[in-house]
Order: sequence, then C-alpha cells, then structure tokens
Amino acid sequence: MAAWAERLAGVRGVLLDISGVLYDSGSGGGTAIAGSVEAVARLKRSPLKVRFCTNESQKSRRELVGLLQRLGFDISEEEVTAPAPATCQILKERGLRPHLLVHDGVRSEFDDINMSNPNCVVIADAGESFSYENMNRAFQVLMELENPVLISLGKGRYYKETSGLMLDVGGYMKALEYACGIEAEVVGKPSPEFFKSALQAIGVEAHQAIMIGDDIVGDVGGAQQCGMRALQVRTGKFSLVLQAWR
Amino acid sequence: MAAWAERLAGVRGVLLDISGVLYDSGSGGGTAIAGSVEAVARLKRSPLKVRFCTNESQKSRRELVGLLQRLGFDISEEEVTAPAPATCQILKERGLRPHLLVHDGVRSEFDDINMSNPNCVVIADAGESFSYENMNRAFQVLMELENPVLISLGKGRYYKETSGLMLDVGGYMKALEYACGIEAEVVGKPSPEFFKSALQAIGVEAHQAIMIGDDIVGDVGGAQQCGMRALQVRTGKFSLVLQAWR
Repeated sequence: MAAWAERLAGVRGVLLDISGVLYDSGSGGGTAIAGSVEAVARLKRSPLKVRFCTNESQKSRRELVGLLQRLGFDISEEEVTAPAPATCQILKERGLRPHLLVHDGVRSEFDDINMSNPNCVVIADAGESFSYENMNRAFQVLMELENPVLISLGKGRYYKETSGLMLDVGGYMKALEYACGIEAEVVGKPSPEFFKSALQAIGVEAHQAIMIGDDIVGDVGGAQQCGMRALQVRTGKFSLVLQAWR
Repeated sequence: MAAWAERLAGVRGVLLDISGVLYDSGSGGGTAIAGSVEAVARLKRSPLKVRFCTNESQKSRRELVGLLQRLGFDISEEEVTAPAPATCQILKERGLRPHLLVHDGVRSEFDDINMSNPNCVVIADAGESFSYENMNRAFQVLMELENPVLISLGKGRYYKETSGLMLDVGGYMKALEYACGIEAEVVGKPSPEFFKSALQAIGVEAHQAIMIGDDIVGDVGGAQQCGMRALQVRTGKFSLVLQAWR
C-alpha cells in the first residue's frame, strides 16, 4: 500500500459523500453500507478533519442526519454541507424569490424564504413530484420572467436505490433548459463554490483535502477541478479503501 | 406584393403545418384560426399540390383529421404526414420493438407493432403521462439495453394551447438523453427524411415546394435545410399571407 501513502501525503481533511458511500437510500429509509459506520468512526478518531458533502436534495439536513444516526453513524447537522441551505444563502444574497419544484421532504429548509411573486425557479430531486403539471408550471413561471433564473440542486443523471436506478434532477434541469432556452445555475457538487464552502467549514485548503465519492463527475471531477485529490469508490468499497489507507 | 411573387416563383407544392397555423389546440378540441378554413379551401382549388405536415403526436391521424373536419377544414387522413405512422415504418424496417411513452390518444397508431420484450423506447408528446414513474420506467428500459435506441416524435420545445404555453416532447427527450448518455433519433420535423416523405407523397421536388409553419426551428429551419423555401407565420396570420400571395 506504499502507493496509497504517497497519494495521500499531506492530506489534512476528508470530504465524504453520503449516498452510495455511507448508505444506499431506498424503502424504509435505506441501509448502511457494510463497514461504513466503523470507517466513519475511525476517521473521526484520527487527526483528520471530516466534512460530509452531499447532493441529497429530497430530505432536509435534519431528516438526513436523523436517518444516518439511526443507522449508527456518528454525524451531526453542523457537519453536513448540502445544496438546500447553500441555495437559501444565494436566494437571500440576490433577493431571489423562488418558485419551488422540490420534494416535500426538503421544503422545510426554505421556511424562512420569501416566495411571493416568484422571480426564479429552484428545482431539486423532486421524485414523484416531477409530474407534467408541476414541470409545466415551473416552465411557465420561467417563460413569464424577463430574466429567467433557474437554480438546480445538483445535476445528477441518476442514482441507485435498493429497488433499482432512479432518474435524478439533472434530466429535469436539462428539460427546462431546453424548453426555455436558458442555462441553469447548479448548486451542489460539482460546483467549485460548493466544494469551497465545505473546505472552509473545516479550515482546510484544497491541496490538503481529498474527496471520497461514488460519482465520477459530481464527486471526482468536481473535486479535482477545485484542486483537491479525489477517490472514486464503488458502492460498498469505502471501508476497504479506508482499511488500506490507515 | 411583387416581392412575394418573386419569392414564390416556380412553387408547385405547399406543405402546411397544422397546429398554430390552421388551429390552436386546447380544451374541447381547440379552435380554428380565423380565415384558415377558407385559405385551405382556396389553396386546394388552385393548381398547387397541398400536403399537411404535422408533428402532432398526442392524437392519431384519424382523430386529428376528424377534429379538423368538424372545424370545417377540407382534409383527409391520406393528405397528412405525421410522425407516428412514419415511426411505425421505421420500427418495422429495423425490427425494433418499442416501449411506448406516448399519449393514450396516439396509441392506436401502434396497434400492429410487436411490443414484447422491448429493444427501444419511443417517446412522443405524452402530456399528463409524463409522470416521474413513466419517465423512470422508460429510463430503466434504456439503461438495460446494450445498444439503447430512443426515438422521439418531434423535438419541440413547447406549444401554445388556448390556456397557455405547454411543454412539448423536446425537453423530455433531452432529459432521457442526458440521464442515459445517448442521443435520440428524431422522427418528424425538422428531420430531413420526414420532409422528404411528405414531398414524395405529392410528387414535388424540394426546390419546387414551400413549407408554411409557425416554428422557426421545426418548420422553417428544417425545410430550408432540405432545400425547400419556408415561411414562418405568426399564429393567425396564415390567411393573411395567402391573401397577399394570390
């Protein structure tokens, strides 16, 4: 494992993807991936700084963390960088009032956002709420704006549930981009701003950090563009990587 | 109107778009655009060959023609080039067995197509049937294929109903393209094959024909790429163009 030691020289911080690395979502909340609970505990006992960096946008941070805690993970809300809170900050900074096309589970994150007379659209992985009626309403809101702004929480192609592959928000973002002739702003991985805010939270520079995720574009490509190292794990392999490393 | 006469010199055939040119779809079937019934009648009394060339994919040709006849148009099924029959021909030629994501109204066009054990996906303007569940099923079918084939009946961005703008099939085609990492084959305008089959039906060469439609990409751009002349009309203006022309 000498190659590993070399690749990881000088690493002070670890960004950890959640879905597909720590657990697989699915009916009943999902299941922890074998060995991951112990791997996180071991990481947190080490001198390394740890931050969880997720594109999860069906659940609020509170709900996600509650689920992971029930699965046995040592994790708190304050340790998670997620797209919905990052989006709320952008909305406030720019005076944007969103029309939301999101999953009911994440709606509470927007509780203190002004949504009257919308001047932008925010979409996230809405699951079953991606009905034609809801998509058409988001489309109409955008078409009525002089300067249409579309913010997408991530741009994933699909993700794996225990029942099989599921369409993620990316395709629906592309649908609205095409229909309206606009380009969306992506909040979440692989956006550099998103990685930077996660690094800032643990006070680690990009060249001292490594991203561990299962998505070659969102996790690995995005982190590398940011000047970080990155490691793609196959689902279920995170704990093995960690054993090899330590 | 001398400029018109010059632009139309040598024209022997006219391809006419239907939706947005002859009528606006909407609740109760839609409404004829003022002057269009008379304009079609006058065209058909002239020496010009006339062919209706539509991307309508929510209705079967029979249903569409029945609706137009009730609105007063002189039109028969045999005079219409539409994507669903063109798709059926392609499916048969290539031994493709489709999983359909289409509107119930057009399903009858596929009555004599083998749909067991699908080896491609066909999408059309499915309207309310573009649920997350149906989109995800189409996505899963494509992901399970070694050589995924996606056929899209048109690639329109949106269309106008009497109640407002409505998302067309194009966005949903883009969503599946992005999620699956593939490129769809478009049957319908602006595909050159589609215009050629319409011209063939009336025995007119491209340089002798003009396309009249309301879509700058699907109608005008597509026809020009085919070597035809083209005329974009704003909804409701077709009869005025015709008056200026004759």
